[in-house]
Amino acid sequence: MSIIISAFDRSPDGGRGLARDTRVRWALEEVGVDYGVRPVAWQAMQEPAHLARHPFGQIPTFEDGGLTLFESGAIVFHIADRHASLLPEAPEARARAISWMFAALNTVEPPILDIQTAMFQEGEQPWAKARMPLIHERVRGRLRQLAARLGDADWLDGAFSAGDLLMVSVLLRLRSSGLLDEFANLAAYVARGEARPAYRRAFEAQRAFNTRPQSAG
Amino acid sequence: MSIIISAFDRSPDGGRGLARDTRVRWALEEVGVDYGVRPVAWQAMQEPAHLARHPFGQIPTFEDGGLTLFESGAIVFHIADRHASLLPEAPEARARAISWMFAALNTVEPPILDIQTAMFQEGEQPWAKARMPLIHERVRGRLRQLAARLGDADWLDGAFSAGDLLMVSVLLRLRSSGLLDEFANLAAYVARGEARPAYRRAFEAQRAFNTRPQSAG
Repeated sequence: MSIIISAFDRSPDGGRGLARDTRVRWALEEVGVDYGVRPVAWQAMQEPAHLARHPFGQIPTFEDGGLTLFESGAIVFHIADRHASLLPEAPEARARAISWMFAALNTVEPPILDIQTAMFQEGEQPWAKARMPLIHERVRGRLRQLAARLGDADWLDGAFSAGDLLMVSVLLRLRSSGLLDEFANLAAYVARGEARPAYRRAFEAQRAFNTRPQSAG
Repeated sequence: MSIIISAFDRSPDGGRGLARDTRVRWALEEVGVDYGVRPVAWQAMQEPAHLARHPFGQIPTFEDGGLTLFESGAIVFHIADRHASLLPEAPEARARAISWMFAALNTVEPPILDIQTAMFQEGEQPWAKARMPLIHERVRGRLRQLAARLGDADWLDGAFSAGDLLMVSVLLRLRSSGLLDEFANLAAYVARGEARPAYRRAFEAQRAFNTRPQSAG
């Protein structure tokens, strides 16, 4: 087993699959490549050994022999680039699928992450409660546009691609907010992603990892 | 001239180069490819003709014959993928450069954009003034990590790449906040990017475009 990814030693979500290693596990399952997992303890995230692998002290990282990568988007792209099935072979369809990868991470995910930033970094501030509806409305704006584009298609641009893998992963983070359920076609789109056997395997693997017995050390 | 990009008819920044078409112009200048520009008026951004090109009603888009792309990161990648010089040829160095592209857009840009969101979308809220130092501190956290990784190198991973092009473009948005000047090596890094002849040409082109005489219509 030559590929090693890193993940939280214990994900803050307790194994609900919302940490970014799940995206990379999913991509590896889609292409059928085995991998090992390096757990990173909370206090080790900002230490030199981990920062050498990830300059921003986050997870996941990806190691394959002498190559070390960070950023889940880049890792998913690397996996898709080296194995068939996650990106179309036709050059124009491939370029469009890559547009959706960037759209998931740079246009759709930031307002969604604002919800978490507001809860976990500004949750004690006096404005916390009054601000949340504004954040939700910005998320709704993006979802409305995405829902309009998706329409009644199964996936964003023809066959399932790495663009869908990332978009579904980003939208999953919204489930507890209730916002996803306001858009029936997006909720069904996410459910289609979750129903893929590769997603199921990735989800079960991260859940088993995050609920494994504590080591004695 | 077969490549057409879209840009604001008049950029809200008045031609300071902060709109995302500048990144795409820069990439096209680096590889020496001519392009035309389709101006999109503010009221046309959310109309069907533009939404067909960009599902989120933003700029830039990229058209080349029958291919239409959106998301500046995806467009810069497409340009780098099809022409020499913006991504290394060695596969591992190329994968690392792509990590920096995603890092610029998914890890460094979101907290920087929060500054603009706070000013332009929540500027009238009672918490606007009290929140800004918290946002700045989150930006500083990222800059500290980026500065530590860059050290005294010229570029993030060896030769100048599309990763540097996007990172410099993202950091440029910070100039008016004063935060960039707190990190001397990052300020010098951005200055190195701006000194590249291709950046100068891209900057001048967008300035000329955004300050062109109003048409009579």
